This record gives sequence, C-alpha cells and structure tokens, in this order.
Amino acid sequence: MSTRRKFIQATAAGVAASVISPRISGETAFAPFSKTATKSPLNLGIAGYTFAKFSIEQSIAIMQRVGIKALSIKDFHLPYDCTKEKADEVKAKFAASGITIYAAGVIYMKTNEEVDRAFDYVQRAGINMIIGSPTIEVLPYVEKKIKLTGIRMAIHNHGPEDKLYAGPKEIFDQIKSLDSRLGICLDIGHCTRALQDPVKAVMQYSSRIFDLHIKDLLKAIPEETPTELGRGIIDIPGLLQALYKISFTGMCSIEFERDMTDSLPGIAESAGYFRGVNKMLSLQ
Amino acid sequence: MSTRRKFIQATAAGVAASVISPRISGETAFAPFSKTATKSPLNLGIAGYTFAKFSIEQSIAIMQRVGIKALSIKDFHLPYDCTKEKADEVKAKFAASGITIYAAGVIYMKTNEEVDRAFDYVQRAGINMIIGSPTIEVLPYVEKKIKLTGIRMAIHNHGPEDKLYAGPKEIFDQIKSLDSRLGICLDIGHCTRALQDPVKAVMQYSSRIFDLHIKDLLKAIPEETPTELGRGIIDIPGLLQALYKISFTGMCSIEFERDMTDSLPGIAESAGYFRGVNKMLSLQ
Repeated sequence: MSTRRKFIQATAAGVAASVISPRISGETAFAPFSKTATKSPLNLGIAGYTFAKFSIEQSIAIMQRVGIKALSIKDFHLPYDCTKEKADEVKAKFAASGITIYAAGVIYMKTNEEVDRAFDYVQRAGINMIIGSPTIEVLPYVEKKIKLTGIRMAIHNHGPEDKLYAGPKEIFDQIKSLDSRLGICLDIGHCTRALQDPVKAVMQYSSRIFDLHIKDLLKAIPEETPTELGRGIIDIPGLLQALYKISFTGMCSIEFERDMTDSLPGIAESAGYFRGVNKMLSLQ
Repeated sequence: MSTRRKFIQATAAGVAASVISPRISGETAFAPFSKTATKSPLNLGIAGYTFAKFSIEQSIAIMQRVGIKALSIKDFHLPYDCTKEKADEVKAKFAASGITIYAAGVIYMKTNEEVDRAFDYVQRAGINMIIGSPTIEVLPYVEKKIKLTGIRMAIHNHGPEDKLYAGPKEIFDQIKSLDSRLGICLDIGHCTRALQDPVKAVMQYSSRIFDLHIKDLLKAIPEETPTELGRGIIDIPGLLQALYKISFTGMCSIEFERDMTDSLPGIAESAGYFRGVNKMLSLQ
C-alpha cells in the first residue's frame, strides 16, 4: 500500500473519531479537546536497569514520586537464585506501594541450562514474561519452554555491538516462524543506534511487540548519548502514534541511563513528556 | 469555519509537512509525524515564586537541569531597593547560564509611591514587564507610568481570596478601556479556583494575555491542591491549543508550589508534560 493511501486511511479514521467525540459540536467556537479521552492511553512503566545504582527502597521511592506503577525487574533486585520466599518478599515490598512487577530481565541465555534457570526463576517469582537475550542455538529450547509453561519471552535488541540482535529486524527474522508468544522488547534507543526506525518497527512487527524500553538520544550514532524523553532525536510522538495504531496494550517502560546515581529529575521529565504526548493522542 | 473543514485543512498541512521532511521518504510505511514542527512552539519559563525556598545559585542549577531559559524574577532574588550594580550582578549570574529575566513580580502596589517604586525598580534592572497587583485606585497612575516608560504590566489573578482580582474577568473589566500595554498574567490555578475556565479566558481576553503562570490542581476548590502538570483537573491540552489559536508569543511559566524545598522532580515532570503537549500541537 502506498504511503499516501495509508495516510488517507489514517485521516479517515481521524475524521470518524472527531465525529463521535461529544465535545466537538457545531456551535462550539473552540473546544477541540475533551477531558474524557476517546482512546485508552498507553501504559507507562519502568525498565529495571534504570535503578542499577539504587536499592529496592530507593527505587520504590522514585516510582512513587513519579507515579509509575509497573516495573520490569532486574536481577540486582531479584537474584536468579532467589527462593520463592525471597521473591514473595521483594514483590510484597513493591506491592505495598501499589507497584506490580510485570516482567523480569534482560536475562542472557547461552545454554539450555540457562534457559531452564530463567524460566524456573520467573515461575518461582510468579512473573509471566521474560525480557531475554537467548543465543540463536537455544531458541528451539526457548520455544519448547514457552509451550510448556505459557510464559512469554520478549527478546531485547541491544544495538550495533549486539552480534545477535542489533535491532528488531534481527529478532523478527529469528522468531517469525516460532511460537507467537515469542516476541520483541523494542529498545528504541538501541534500535535507533542500529539505524533502524523504531516507528517503522512497531508497524512492521506489530504482533510481536510485547514490551518497549523507551528513552531518547541526542544523536543517532553507535555511541550512546542518552537524554530526557523529548530532548533528543527519537520521534516519540510518531512512536506513540504507531503504538495507538496497533492498539498496543503492553508496557512502555522508561529506561533512563543518564545521571544514574541522580536520575529522579530525568525520569520525572521523561514521564511528564510521555504523559503529555500520550494525553494528546488519547484525545485524537 | 466548520470543524470538518478545519480538520481537512490541518490534514493538508500535514501532507505538505510530510513531503518536505527529509526523514519521511516514499517507502515509509507509517509516518504521520514530521520531525520538523509546522508551527512555532510555545515558550516555557519559570515563575520566580517557584524558587521561594532556594538561593539564586540553586535556582539556576534547577533551571539548567530542566533546560528552561526564561525567568520572571521575585524580589527575594532581586530586592526592590537594589542598586543598578546589584541588578546587573544578579542578571549576569543568570545570563552566565543562558537564562534571561523577562519580567519581575508579582509586585503589589497600593499607592502612587509604590507604583513609582515598581517602575523605577524594573527600569533600573532593565526589565520591560511588571507582573503586578495594583489597587483599583492606582490604575490611572499605572497607565500614566506605562505611557511614560513603555514598560508593560500584566496583572496577576490570585483566586477567590483576592478581593480585587479573583480571576481574569475581574482584571479585564478594570483594564479593557485602558492602555493596551496593561494586560493579564493568567494564573491558571487561581483562575480555576475562582471557577473561571482558563481555556475560555485565553480566547476571551486574548489581546490582553501577556504572561501565564501554569500549574495543575488536584481539585477545583478554593483551597489550593497543587500537583504536577498533567496529574490534575486543569485542561492543559485545551489551554495550550487556545494559546496556539491566539498565536501567543509570551511565556508560559511554570509556578510549582508543592514540595517547595524539594521541587526539582515536580518541576521536571511539569516541564516534560508541557513539552510533550507543546510538541504535539506544533506538529498539528
């Protein structure tokens, strides 16, 4: 389909939305917005690596301050070899502040034993999605484990240095014929560094986008230049619009990798920017 | 013009933008947004009262962190009786971090002498707008001073407890037949507490809106319930859309009045939200 044709279809959808919106009436001189969103907003979370320099308590305090209730946990807060009791204790700490742990990772897997360990770990913790980076060799075993457990895995792209999964294209090429519960955790920063457009990736691999690591970069170069959401070169409005288009119901998790020992202001600004764009799109 | 007609015009502009944007090429499957805004974005500043608990150095550090370059200064950072040398010194401190002082206030004036003091103060400091709260009795003298000096005054609404200027309506009623350089600093929080709609106020008093204090409230009750921009009940998207409609070129200054000794995260989140909504509107 041509770009033009798709654009016209998007426009038609927009017209339909404006017709059904109760706030837009003939006699209103100026009222393009409704306080009531016409679409469900996207969900905002935090990717656990953001808290690499913080304790669980500090991480909870930051999440409470910025009003974010979903976390993809990293092993430094929940070790792979934790007991079920330890996992319950950690989850209870977060739950006491209204925070849900919706995934765990990124978990690297090079052998079937490491795949077993990852699945055992999230099962023990009662988490139903792994953010993973398995080698190509273990993918058949990963698929087998998914069929056995029902646990989903979102493979994470880690940029041009990642020999397996530089961008979402490399992930999709590996998983497209495998179980539909094997998908992509689209890291929009590493995707951009791999010179792949994250907006296009959302549309092209829509059914396999399970999770997102959202961030911004000052430049689209191999070296990382992290910055607050909205200050960089990544097309955040376009990305969120694409996620609305595919009716994405997963998490958009902020992964903030600047000032990592003093990141609350940057996380807060990023959350605010996401919410501003998200609000506007929910009204369209 | 009908809503439908306006929508179609906006769409046509969008098509044009997509054609001229270098990022959006023919083979793009999905590209509703252009990285190049089609409209000038609104300007973001800080209202000095935000920094009531901070030194000049702390205030500068916060503004640098959140990337805001315009300040309406309060007297606790630049006393009314300051010398020209002191004013130059304070301005130079801000200027060294790229920050411009675009106004001073809120300044209260009950006598002609206090009006003189306010105008002398900003003239000495080289600032060309007063955010003021003059009594009704001194308004003729204020007008005379405006004609003499060319300095503008934006009168600030302070909510239901303010016997003179509860909302923008009370200001407009007093100034509508006076010099056009006498206007309104629309405080959207106090406006909402006075049960006046700030979005309507922007449209109704458009030519007299010189400055804004932007904030959010959890509830539209007389008591203040300040919160981060986007978390409350004020229609920020509608407000910014109205400001685009009137081609507002002044400042939208965050006045953050919560956690005032630890307000950086709240200021940052508010700045992010403003920028997200602003970005979306600049693309429409």
